[in-house]
Amino acid sequence: MSRIAYVNGQYVPHQDAAVHIEDRGYQFADGVYEVFAVHQGRMVGEQGHMERLAHSLGELRIDWPMSARALGVIIREVSRRNRVRDGLIYLQITRGVARRDHSFPDNTESALVVTARRMPPLDKEQLRKGVGVITIPDIRWQRHDIKSVSLLPNIIGKQQAREAGAYEAWMVNNEGMITEGTSSNAWIVTKDGELVTHNASHAILNGITRLSVLEAAVAAGVPFSERAFSVEEAMQAKEAFVTSSTSHVKAVTSIDGHSIGNGHIGELTSRMLDLYVDFIETKGGPQNTNTWN
Amino acid sequence: MSRIAYVNGQYVPHQDAAVHIEDRGYQFADGVYEVFAVHQGRMVGEQGHMERLAHSLGELRIDWPMSARALGVIIREVSRRNRVRDGLIYLQITRGVARRDHSFPDNTESALVVTARRMPPLDKEQLRKGVGVITIPDIRWQRHDIKSVSLLPNIIGKQQAREAGAYEAWMVNNEGMITEGTSSNAWIVTKDGELVTHNASHAILNGITRLSVLEAAVAAGVPFSERAFSVEEAMQAKEAFVTSSTSHVKAVTSIDGHSIGNGHIGELTSRMLDLYVDFIETKGGPQNTNTWN
Repeated sequence: MSRIAYVNGQYVPHQDAAVHIEDRGYQFADGVYEVFAVHQGRMVGEQGHMERLAHSLGELRIDWPMSARALGVIIREVSRRNRVRDGLIYLQITRGVARRDHSFPDNTESALVVTARRMPPLDKEQLRKGVGVITIPDIRWQRHDIKSVSLLPNIIGKQQAREAGAYEAWMVNNEGMITEGTSSNAWIVTKDGELVTHNASHAILNGITRLSVLEAAVAAGVPFSERAFSVEEAMQAKEAFVTSSTSHVKAVTSIDGHSIGNGHIGELTSRMLDLYVDFIETKGGPQNTNTWN
Repeated sequence: MSRIAYVNGQYVPHQDAAVHIEDRGYQFADGVYEVFAVHQGRMVGEQGHMERLAHSLGELRIDWPMSARALGVIIREVSRRNRVRDGLIYLQITRGVARRDHSFPDNTESALVVTARRMPPLDKEQLRKGVGVITIPDIRWQRHDIKSVSLLPNIIGKQQAREAGAYEAWMVNNEGMITEGTSSNAWIVTKDGELVTHNASHAILNGITRLSVLEAAVAAGVPFSERAFSVEEAMQAKEAFVTSSTSHVKAVTSIDGHSIGNGHIGELTSRMLDLYVDFIETKGGPQNTNTWN
């Protein structure tokens, strides 16, 4: 079966899917995106993704290419045409095509691309296998709350991780605090047993999976703290994990080669994975989706 | 006459010029660019642009899509087909098309786009008319020496300038020092008569026009200093100007609405414009092009 993409009003074979060279997404990284997980035939956290998309578009003053409702129809249609039961929907909106000039063009229509990819179903056993992360300086721009395609530092960081044999790179700001991973949020369970992830602010992208895990924790009575944590605190942590729409809840068992806990998935991490899967299967995604910076 | 663009091996009508939606330039800002000025039928600073391009590609480990020599042939051909006597050549190289994944793909061919635009000839009278700049926080990532398409903060800044009725926005780092404009280098003549522009480092993009002006200054025996300068120092400056391949040497007569000098182009600025134009007309561009960070 060949993949189908949606590009500016048309469903086209993936290999033919193209945008103009003066699409501002290509020349200026002037666009935003969302990645929706599809789990057992259902989109996870659709409402949250749409509200975060509204935040990103609003902060950059990029027009919606259509209503959120119409966008939902297209997303579902792309998913259907690609027969995605488990996998991802990728959505990108840019400020559109205009003669190259830094300032915003007048009367340009926003561009919209939607693609889908089938993936193996969520596999708890796989997620329970620990992975390593490295720490790198956070050299990004200062608006991580906007989910823009301006991802150059992120891909450099991910490449550094890959070359170090690690799964992800955790970025460390000037104060020595870990903000997040290059494409995931960072979590630890401190030596005192406190579940911690960075608070939502301009310093991180507030993940939909992050929000689901927090709501699942509330529902289950698991205490947590949303605050910055240092590399030192992470090194001394009992447990660690990452969350994202593609990584779900994934155990981290080493940081910069230093073993975390006993080198296996921690108890609370394992519990949070179970709680998360239950949560998305019953609730569909986070309900409280109003905290984008 | 319709415009012609070069895209990945083909010369195509500009309106049909397209790249794949999974070109990493579109999804990750994973690419670099150069803008060459064409002045009286000659490319300005070709050698400098090519060496800076080599720096940008090297730092990001993006392969050259072809030899620098072959690239030069294409640039000239695009210029010729668009009958550019005065104007711009835009060149963009990205890491190419690959299934979306943050880390670098293996065995992907770099993508190459070259476009041209005719512009009115360099007009000294126009450049001598003063423009205003505003100052804004420098919120960009930390590798400004790499001329990447990761330009989202730059376009936001340029838009802020436009909405303030200004020509450019000068970006101010955490130490209160002006780094550069969103698409140009920043210069002042201090109250003591010293010509100053930020030193080449990771904090600025070392402009080809900037280098030409510096070499023209050396040749004419005009003393200068390459160092950071603060907003306060700029406010007290006798003169100010910006340089870029599109702005050449352009007088700045106000900063944040505060008048610089007597509100007209300063003496040294006017002289540097003349020296610059003489320099590129006789030398073709900077000769000492080895200082990209």
